[in-house]
Amino acid sequence: MNATNITWHENHVKRDEREKLLSQKGLTIWLTGLPSSGKSTTAFTFEHELIKQGHLAYVLDGDNVRHGLNNNLGFSAEDREENIRRIGEVALLFADAGIITITSFISPYRSDRDRARKIHDDKGLHFIEIFVDTPIEICEDRDPKGLYKKARAGELKGFTGIDDPYEPPVNPDYVLKTAEKSPELLSLELIEYLINNGLLKD
Amino acid sequence: MNATNITWHENHVKRDEREKLLSQKGLTIWLTGLPSSGKSTTAFTFEHELIKQGHLAYVLDGDNVRHGLNNNLGFSAEDREENIRRIGEVALLFADAGIITITSFISPYRSDRDRARKIHDDKGLHFIEIFVDTPIEICEDRDPKGLYKKARAGELKGFTGIDDPYEPPVNPDYVLKTAEKSPELLSLELIEYLINNGLLKD
Repeated sequence: MNATNITWHENHVKRDEREKLLSQKGLTIWLTGLPSSGKSTTAFTFEHELIKQGHLAYVLDGDNVRHGLNNNLGFSAEDREENIRRIGEVALLFADAGIITITSFISPYRSDRDRARKIHDDKGLHFIEIFVDTPIEICEDRDPKGLYKKARAGELKGFTGIDDPYEPPVNPDYVLKTAEKSPELLSLELIEYLINNGLLKD
Repeated sequence: MNATNITWHENHVKRDEREKLLSQKGLTIWLTGLPSSGKSTTAFTFEHELIKQGHLAYVLDGDNVRHGLNNNLGFSAEDREENIRRIGEVALLFADAGIITITSFISPYRSDRDRARKIHDDKGLHFIEIFVDTPIEICEDRDPKGLYKKARAGELKGFTGIDDPYEPPVNPDYVLKTAEKSPELLSLELIEYLINNGLLKD
């Protein structure tokens, strides 16, 4: 018969209890790069490899975010900023839950990525900025959805890399060269990076 | 050297791989009830009990959502609706990640809760609506933040239960009586409910 709100703080499950249960640290791995640079392929291959090794990972990408949480946002400058802001906040919640959270968005502006890093820093959560560094010629050559072609033809306005800027990270935590290595190899590289930095158990 | 986007779908980690890893089903347990009805106390006690039993659970509540993801929303009718819409979408992502997701928000309107249920249904994810059924006299008597008092004095407008309606669930999946049982007992009841419905392993 003691159902007051007084017990709130005692009951609050600490992040480290979840991390202990999962035998891993929650953190956010933020992929950034040009359209068709290979972010999603890398993200899903990496997620698959992590799960195979017994780690809980989850990818936030256009498919599950743009069609759901951010389905009321367009592509104006304001909406793009809000898009990345919300993704940063959701990644923060996932990381707090103990999950290895992988975000796969162009996220072209430094200020937006820096803000996502800051909210992680403020909660003592790791934020790993990964530059998916693929030359634009190769991205444009891949162009699986024909978007570069449309942008070049002027049918698509504000396309990152063509008529909207992409600001590469100044000091990325890691750089991935998708034009030189397979997604599988890049995923193993990333896992090694996490282990070497004490962010993942061998 | 095969870093195209073609492998995308093959690499997509299925929900059941994560559920296998965690030995549990991802789902959303949606608590709804008047201010001071005991939602958060119940949510955190329940989360704690689940983690103690080896299950990964996470609470979404005002503390981690209103101050982060939804910090650009106020209390207009439109913003309240958007508040609950975003929470539903984030709960969906958490459930998809295999987590036992507990939301603790007044969520006074049926239509908002029904929409949250619908997006879960659409993805084949369970959505358990729990009515935290505490008589308003008891909520008002608890009033840990003095909000009912302010609302009665007219200093707080649009307060649920006083001058803004609370629409109780018509067919809640479960009803919790916080005025009659302790949070610990209610948590064990909820766990039994999940087990009896094949949603949690014993």
